Amino acid sequence: MNHVAERAGVSLKTVSRYVNGETNIAPELGERIAAAIAELGYRRNLAAASIRPGQASRLIGLIISDLANPYYSALAAAAEQEVMAQGYVLVVSSSTDDIARYDHLVSRLVEQRVDGLIIVPPRGGHDRIDSDSLLSPAVFLDRPPLSGGADCVLADNRGGARSAIEALLNGGLRQVAFLSDSLEVFTIRERWLGYLETMACHGVDPVSLPNWTGAHSREEAKAGAIRLLQETEVEAFFTANNRATLGALEAMQETGIQRPIIGFDDFESASLIGGGISVVRQPVEEMGRAAAQMLLAKMTRETSQQQQVVLPTELVLRGSEAR
Amino acid sequence: MNHVAERAGVSLKTVSRYVNGETNIAPELGERIAAAIAELGYRRNLAAASIRPGQASRLIGLIISDLANPYYSALAAAAEQEVMAQGYVLVVSSSTDDIARYDHLVSRLVEQRVDGLIIVPPRGGHDRIDSDSLLSPAVFLDRPPLSGGADCVLADNRGGARSAIEALLNGGLRQVAFLSDSLEVFTIRERWLGYLETMACHGVDPVSLPNWTGAHSREEAKAGAIRLLQETEVEAFFTANNRATLGALEAMQETGIQRPIIGFDDFESASLIGGGISVVRQPVEEMGRAAAQMLLAKMTRETSQQQQVVLPTELVLRGSEAR
Repeated sequence: MNHVAERAGVSLKTVSRYVNGETNIAPELGERIAAAIAELGYRRNLAAASIRPGQASRLIGLIISDLANPYYSALAAAAEQEVMAQGYVLVVSSSTDDIARYDHLVSRLVEQRVDGLIIVPPRGGHDRIDSDSLLSPAVFLDRPPLSGGADCVLADNRGGARSAIEALLNGGLRQVAFLSDSLEVFTIRERWLGYLETMACHGVDPVSLPNWTGAHSREEAKAGAIRLLQETEVEAFFTANNRATLGALEAMQETGIQRPIIGFDDFESASLIGGGISVVRQPVEEMGRAAAQMLLAKMTRETSQQQQVVLPTELVLRGSEAR
Repeated sequence: MNHVAERAGVSLKTVSRYVNGETNIAPELGERIAAAIAELGYRRNLAAASIRPGQASRLIGLIISDLANPYYSALAAAAEQEVMAQGYVLVVSSSTDDIARYDHLVSRLVEQRVDGLIIVPPRGGHDRIDSDSLLSPAVFLDRPPLSGGADCVLADNRGGARSAIEALLNGGLRQVAFLSDSLEVFTIRERWLGYLETMACHGVDPVSLPNWTGAHSREEAKAGAIRLLQETEVEAFFTANNRATLGALEAMQETGIQRPIIGFDDFESASLIGGGISVVRQPVEEMGRAAAQMLLAKMTRETSQQQQVVLPTELVLRGSEAR
């Protein structure tokens, strides 16, 4: 509504009165507001707002990229706990990393008058995604919006990758393959940078190394790992998310070729596989909780000071880094 | 609204007019309708209905018991795929198996005018839970409501347990321990019955056997399994859900005492642990999809014929049943 007021050159109060259906507004002002609404694409949201003016839903929406990925489920459960403690209900939806679907979800949730949104933006993203363009207070989680400049809670992806690569290099390994989902994904890109810079610092030219990016599913990661194991001199794996880790482990099981491995993301049975799989653990509970707290604070306070919180990861060595 | 009309002894149309705020209703009728609404506890729902009469939200709510449990995440992802394909948005919330919270969630989602609900009722449950008492069409998933008589999609829990116990007994094992969450949970109770009847058919008195129920978390299951391993003659484990399976595997790792095991629920890395963990696999995708399809059909059709679908499980033997 602030944007509409600015665009139309009228006060916020006038926009509010217009939206709430009051009739004693000069026709010329009404037209300017309507034009601003159309230009900014806020029509449906304001229509929804006009239906239940002033009523809070006590509902918070969380948009993740995949309901079935345990990493996001754990984030959701952590956010839920915080939100519940404050008397709100959390509803979770998935964008399946599809931009059109993401847009649809955001507008549907805003129409439902959620009091706030916690958002994992879809891979690639687009410029329109930032919390100022949303009609609900929003906090970004796991990945920032492309355009930057929004409240967000992230893990230290780059630092986490660095710690994993250091551990492998210190073990005397050189040909460390990076196996991952697409570099379009913010978190994967950051982990890639951490990998590259650490290799370079240790005098290893990363360009000469066997790598495989673009494996979205566990099956694609497995196929990529099998090719790396069979066709290159790969000495170890750094797998950049839980799906890639499981795929690489399956590839080693199937080919019988064992290599040291450290994965990004801890996972449920990491301590039960082989003698234990080493991982970079993200502070999942803290991340979910911090995002919820940041959003709740934003919903109740007048200030709009932006915050970017980056939480440290932890290297959990269980033996697979040297086996 | 049908219930209100019946209780007040007025036509459905009169209730609808009352709810939509029309004033030309005889005061005496209005009072009767108000009393019926109060008696039936529908006040808040009707208040919400009056706000956006006739408007569909294109939103479907899914209530599960735990966002962080991968079994429910997989069910949610399967339901979402079907719901999305029909142009609806799925929002997922968790009751954390708490009845008060479950009640709150149902009423909040109905107030938000979801077009339908897919419900995993909380453990224990209560009589008020059945789809007739809800103002939205509802289908139950994984667990039926206590009162029965509602549309639901279940797995063949009892048959699945039977197939697992048969496999262990055929391997010459007798002292098969049942390790599980609380018997208050419908699915656990069904699996327990399948275990009991199969043991009895094979001449093993189940009452004499070492068992441990009431382990809700993986940590509780681990503690229970350690006691069974150290204090009883347990020869094998039948673990009645994925949490219990992981707990038992941890217990065996920690004590160094290995026993054959079959778990209920397949899980992400079952094939990667040891030589592979044998499981009873639930048809998770089919269950999520079937519940969504049943609900969508119910939302669009006039008939109210109740359906109970029980889908078969699959015994996946990976070697742990005999190791």
